[in-house]
Amino acid sequence: MNTPLDDLRAILGPDAVWVPGAPASPDLSGYLNDWRGRYQGRARAVVRPQDTHGVALTVQWCARHGVQIVPQGGHTGLVGGGVPDATGEQIVLSLQRLRHVRHVDADNLSMTIEAGCTLAEVQAAAEAAGLLFPLSLAAEGSCTIGGNLATNAGGTQVLRYGTARELCLGLEAVSAAGEVWHGLHGLRKNNTGYDLRDLLIGSEGTLGIITAATLRLYPRPRSRQAAWLTCPSPAHAVALLGRARRHLDAWLTGFELMHRYPLMLIAQHLPQQASLVRRLTGEDSEGHDAHGGLEVASPHAASLRAAWSVLLDAASPQPDAFLQAALEALIAEAMDEGEVCQAQLSQSDAQYRAMWGLREAIPLAEKAAATMVKHDVGLPTSRVAEFITQAQSALQHAYPGCAVVCFGHLGDGNLHFNVQAPSDMAAAIFIGGHEPQVNRIVYDLVQSMNGTISAEHGIGQLKREELATRGDPLAIEWMQAIKRALDPDGRLNPGRVLTP
Amino acid sequence: MNTPLDDLRAILGPDAVWVPGAPASPDLSGYLNDWRGRYQGRARAVVRPQDTHGVALTVQWCARHGVQIVPQGGHTGLVGGGVPDATGEQIVLSLQRLRHVRHVDADNLSMTIEAGCTLAEVQAAAEAAGLLFPLSLAAEGSCTIGGNLATNAGGTQVLRYGTARELCLGLEAVSAAGEVWHGLHGLRKNNTGYDLRDLLIGSEGTLGIITAATLRLYPRPRSRQAAWLTCPSPAHAVALLGRARRHLDAWLTGFELMHRYPLMLIAQHLPQQASLVRRLTGEDSEGHDAHGGLEVASPHAASLRAAWSVLLDAASPQPDAFLQAALEALIAEAMDEGEVCQAQLSQSDAQYRAMWGLREAIPLAEKAAATMVKHDVGLPTSRVAEFITQAQSALQHAYPGCAVVCFGHLGDGNLHFNVQAPSDMAAAIFIGGHEPQVNRIVYDLVQSMNGTISAEHGIGQLKREELATRGDPLAIEWMQAIKRALDPDGRLNPGRVLTP
Repeated sequence: MNTPLDDLRAILGPDAVWVPGAPASPDLSGYLNDWRGRYQGRARAVVRPQDTHGVALTVQWCARHGVQIVPQGGHTGLVGGGVPDATGEQIVLSLQRLRHVRHVDADNLSMTIEAGCTLAEVQAAAEAAGLLFPLSLAAEGSCTIGGNLATNAGGTQVLRYGTARELCLGLEAVSAAGEVWHGLHGLRKNNTGYDLRDLLIGSEGTLGIITAATLRLYPRPRSRQAAWLTCPSPAHAVALLGRARRHLDAWLTGFELMHRYPLMLIAQHLPQQASLVRRLTGEDSEGHDAHGGLEVASPHAASLRAAWSVLLDAASPQPDAFLQAALEALIAEAMDEGEVCQAQLSQSDAQYRAMWGLREAIPLAEKAAATMVKHDVGLPTSRVAEFITQAQSALQHAYPGCAVVCFGHLGDGNLHFNVQAPSDMAAAIFIGGHEPQVNRIVYDLVQSMNGTISAEHGIGQLKREELATRGDPLAIEWMQAIKRALDPDGRLNPGRVLTP
Repeated sequence: MNTPLDDLRAILGPDAVWVPGAPASPDLSGYLNDWRGRYQGRARAVVRPQDTHGVALTVQWCARHGVQIVPQGGHTGLVGGGVPDATGEQIVLSLQRLRHVRHVDADNLSMTIEAGCTLAEVQAAAEAAGLLFPLSLAAEGSCTIGGNLATNAGGTQVLRYGTARELCLGLEAVSAAGEVWHGLHGLRKNNTGYDLRDLLIGSEGTLGIITAATLRLYPRPRSRQAAWLTCPSPAHAVALLGRARRHLDAWLTGFELMHRYPLMLIAQHLPQQASLVRRLTGEDSEGHDAHGGLEVASPHAASLRAAWSVLLDAASPQPDAFLQAALEALIAEAMDEGEVCQAQLSQSDAQYRAMWGLREAIPLAEKAAATMVKHDVGLPTSRVAEFITQAQSALQHAYPGCAVVCFGHLGDGNLHFNVQAPSDMAAAIFIGGHEPQVNRIVYDLVQSMNGTISAEHGIGQLKREELATRGDPLAIEWMQAIKRALDPDGRLNPGRVLTP
């Protein structure tokens, strides 16, 4: 007699259903556990349909057999959204085999692709058409566009181009009942009823399963340049951000803030980048190395202690010289105002990449240094400087000698604010015993400043209780009502975003 | 004994409740009928609370007494969304007294304002802070920001800055039960659960009543310039749009397409603008008038018949000369490619306003000419030229001699495509007897090209049945389920967007 999984195999094909531990299945640990090692799960099967119809049939099979579904893309999330629970009764529904580029419409600046394409593949398909898909983040080689949309991914160019939500025009998705919503379109404006697209985007697979999307593309910029700037304080960096917006407007594509401490961790743990750190932060202005970016020294540089760095990214449809002139005018003015101590402009692609390489090395250096209590907070930009001061002070009061790795997308008010145990406390004790208290200090302050406890990583399992207790009561009630309306049997990614 | 309305008056104050026909009430016809004269309604009362708490109390009163609510802002909509039904049992809930600017946060580029502020007041408040709120449309002097958000208004700068949805960061709203959602925040990124903001935006008052919003502001551009360009065909205009995007990227703020016919109607019905029409469209290149824009003549101009005009709008944070140089380079290239026949650049604010005045005079001239069957369709930009050709041809086949007033926001794929009766048919007969057939021709074609029947005006009462029959079945099912979840008693703007 056929088991239900045999039936599913008959529907989807033999290679579409992997059962953990079965002889014909590969190692499935990557599907069942999260890559940071925080969550481990079990599953009845990992199901890998190859097209939208297959996804719909899988969901229909789940409805018939009362099986819960954990949708999964590249499984690079940070909040446990794609890890099945411990019962072994759920299935992981992997979208990774849906990877066609269905249509590129260059005249409409749009492209329709399937959910399982990696972000890097989406970027490459746009580039092949001479266009730009501007979503960009560290995991782009392995995260999928379906996951990016399900979690409303952010990344390094949100300041100019928006999050995944703002880069999506239309969606195709499968409902909890296994029906298909044909919502793909390349329209810039479409006022025909409720915004189902934005409701599914960021819902982390709890309302429907995204199978394809029509994305917005942009012209590729003609020139691109980065500037590494040192600033005396976060308040100076915020003032610099305002000035950069006025000078550059949409030419400003990224504005990253970094404290000296994470850069010191790079110098310490990634020795091949140490000389670049020293050179860019001005701690080795006599030194010579291969970087050789154009240096713009302020007359006050020597007298100012610049504990903060800004990586400013700019792009323009004009020739290089125009962009450079605009950047130089901005920097000269900011130096006169004391916002910038020292500045270096990238003069080649290699230098541009090296500057970004330093910014992107922070998580690596941090991981090498210690396990930390991590935060992904968002604030009104106008409150960021105050937040940093007050949070540092409250943490020092509670944990004298603790260190904070503070960096992030200042242009979006988004800080990664990670707390390292005091030197006299073992990391395991700090994480194991004090995480809730550290979170409370940080999140209470964030909430008092009308900020968010999750700017870009989402809720998943990790922050579900925080959202339930800190969220606006009516908002939570509305979310629960919407969940019941679209997934009455609670079959889609249960226990994520909302408490059951 | 007190009537329920007496109770409401006691709760809100005597001047907050107007009863049609009562001695103390002013003329309420503006609240009960739509300004185009298409819909007439009756109401039990026009209720005008002065703050969010008053809105909540009003909704609670409605819940107690089983009264349906028609929320209303400036009442400038085009689809009958704010007109009460004929029963006289509903109330009109006017938000016009909620008009405080609560907070301008210049460092965060955001501003929190109440729903009843007119769009012009919102623009002025941003300008007073040295910033720009870029939403702009013809009704801005009387439409309210609450209505703009409830209908996801578009307008003339969507190409650069997006619709109302993309200009809103946070919302405050009152639920069908009279509770308040405190969702105001100035965060650029916030991934904490379902996107309730975008669900309410564009829901036309059927899911909740928007009482305040935190809006995104932008730096004010330093230079601004318009170009009036004539093109041989819509296909040439689409090619020009692509070229303008590559050259100007975000400096391109508007791209309006107009056929010669609506411009002829202006020359005919608004004589004071006739000479400007002739001059800009090149039909009077010998003529001299007060406009005097910088003329850039193509060598081919004389040999090409330019039936189409483009109004291109551009703005930049750079000095005027840079923007003008970029526009001249674009136009020179487009002329070489035959996309542009003749071009004039505005050389002063007066000329800039005169060019836009011509574009904005089209609805006036159209109204003076005849009553028409109107459409607000959206298409992928890549299909616009084909749509115009095929729609013209199908309409000529069905109604030989009919005329089409074709103009719109080509940069967003949004066309206003209005059909005038053949000269041998009275307008009243055409409108009264043939509107459904004309709509069918236009909408069938739109649908076959994956377009939309409402790009910016919304659904309201006017297009409710079209949406019900043409919408994706699962999308309609989801919308109905969401409506039932958030407004189980069907009290908020019933019969709008969705069929009951």
